[in-house]
Amino acid sequence: MKKLINSPETLVLEALDGMAAAHGDILRVHKDPNFITRASSPINGKVALLSGGGSGHEPMHGGFVGLGMLDAACPGAVFTSPTPDQILAATKAIDGGAGVLYLVKNYTGDVMNFEMAAEFAKGDGIAVESVVIDDDVAVKDSTWTAGRRGVGTTVLAEKICGGAAEAKLPLAEVAALCRRVNAQGRSMGMALTSCTVPHAGKPSFELKEDEMEIGVGIHGEPGRYRVKLEQADRIAEMLMQPILEDLPFKGGDNVLLFVNGMGGTPAIELYVVYRKAFEIATKHGLKIGRNLVGSYITSLEMAGCSITLLRLDDDMAPYWDAPVHTSALRWGA
Amino acid sequence: MKKLINSPETLVLEALDGMAAAHGDILRVHKDPNFITRASSPINGKVALLSGGGSGHEPMHGGFVGLGMLDAACPGAVFTSPTPDQILAATKAIDGGAGVLYLVKNYTGDVMNFEMAAEFAKGDGIAVESVVIDDDVAVKDSTWTAGRRGVGTTVLAEKICGGAAEAKLPLAEVAALCRRVNAQGRSMGMALTSCTVPHAGKPSFELKEDEMEIGVGIHGEPGRYRVKLEQADRIAEMLMQPILEDLPFKGGDNVLLFVNGMGGTPAIELYVVYRKAFEIATKHGLKIGRNLVGSYITSLEMAGCSITLLRLDDDMAPYWDAPVHTSALRWGA
Repeated sequence: MKKLINSPETLVLEALDGMAAAHGDILRVHKDPNFITRASSPINGKVALLSGGGSGHEPMHGGFVGLGMLDAACPGAVFTSPTPDQILAATKAIDGGAGVLYLVKNYTGDVMNFEMAAEFAKGDGIAVESVVIDDDVAVKDSTWTAGRRGVGTTVLAEKICGGAAEAKLPLAEVAALCRRVNAQGRSMGMALTSCTVPHAGKPSFELKEDEMEIGVGIHGEPGRYRVKLEQADRIAEMLMQPILEDLPFKGGDNVLLFVNGMGGTPAIELYVVYRKAFEIATKHGLKIGRNLVGSYITSLEMAGCSITLLRLDDDMAPYWDAPVHTSALRWGA
Repeated sequence: MKKLINSPETLVLEALDGMAAAHGDILRVHKDPNFITRASSPINGKVALLSGGGSGHEPMHGGFVGLGMLDAACPGAVFTSPTPDQILAATKAIDGGAGVLYLVKNYTGDVMNFEMAAEFAKGDGIAVESVVIDDDVAVKDSTWTAGRRGVGTTVLAEKICGGAAEAKLPLAEVAALCRRVNAQGRSMGMALTSCTVPHAGKPSFELKEDEMEIGVGIHGEPGRYRVKLEQADRIAEMLMQPILEDLPFKGGDNVLLFVNGMGGTPAIELYVVYRKAFEIATKHGLKIGRNLVGSYITSLEMAGCSITLLRLDDDMAPYWDAPVHTSALRWGA
């Protein structure tokens, strides 16, 4: 196992220390329990957004804490759900009186722990709404999931709902917006290589030198099928086809195309995939009005990519465009 | 060889098409010869910044074309210098009457081809200045280099000089600033794994499962030594020590700390390295006033990192902070 770490045990805490050292203008790192808030938390009268999940998907979620996006992120151990006490402590730290929205990726442990934290928080008088993101069209149920997995749309929901919260929309409206974003987003991913969870010390799965996994999950969970390696254009087709078949909207819309790297894929390759995905989407009658290209929801050093299509309604686009100032996503601020 | 490409022959052009499809608001892709300019080029009365080099180091340089940074980038084939005709055509496309500054990484082919292009451009009546970046403390001469290699400081020079050019400084002053940035920047890198150049189809070099290369070049060129894998803190020390020994400045300054991923390294690991590098720099009496953490000058999918320290003079810091709007680096715009 070749990694720039000191030990599997210290990895997450040391990375948090690094984030604190680098981004003190944006965020604060809290320990025991571990969570990241904005440097300016809590913000009076603004709905606070909280997300979290296993570590190993960076920059999601800690990299998205800041103006225009999240108020807090709760990192679990690598590929392990955060605990209810982390989520509860973060909830208390960011509530500015307007309530807290939980953005939860659909994995069984995450859903359960966010539910428990929500119960505790409500008991403490904090208004909480939860939205479960389940945009992955690859499989119906998965290793750690009842129902579809939550993947790329999570990043987009955090940005769009973050913009809505900055605009001081009330909790119920931000939550409703988040549900619409989730309902209109569809994703699918693939892997060229496995990743290695530090604690495990060996690859999560084995792919032969001429094989790839189509529909892979962000923890290396099995996808739809394992096939011979293909060229990038064919891979883009293999991801786009199931997404397009599942889309709840038709052509002519303002669609956001997100080509995401799994962690170990060079930017030059993501643009090769973007080129073909854009072509396929356009031929399908979709109008790509916004995009995102880069490694934003990753699986450690896994080589591969995912594609997300999201229809932007007229009220969503301005929130996508709105200023954001986080360590991983920044514009207009 | 597992890559998201269609063929080695089409990779660079298809990635350029992807960039054009994704970032039409920022840039224009020109073919035959290949170069990227801003969508707004040429800009009257502003010194134009041009850089380039082999592809495979993305987002450098194409990802840095836009407001506040480069006016043009000339991508060669993977790890291969751009040709004089590319550079000359880009020069003509971006000159707004105030001249063009070439930022050239110190590799023999790059230096030679930029020199030839500069001669041609001057013959066509365009004022050109060139600055060669040679900030890598690892080795004195290298596989493709007489003198030190140009690495991480290139990214910082492009940002700072880009800010100066937006402020309408004249060519001689932007060039002088660039020379000072280069003189005050020091870098060193390391690799956990090799990368595979698509045309070659096999790893550029072989590292055993328990080995790493300290002082590696961005094309996988040999560094100072190959040793057993160490923990991240020790690796940070092995990179920081030669940088600190070579620094042309003492403690108490406003220093920028740049921890760069080589392409295949997860963000979580870069923050572990940042944490230790920050600690070492601080103990050394340096005041880290700015930073950059991410994969900005890469070697395809190589796993590893580099560290750059740059002293920011009082006139440099505002240009670093100034608005930038490129596909890979964006703030305040």
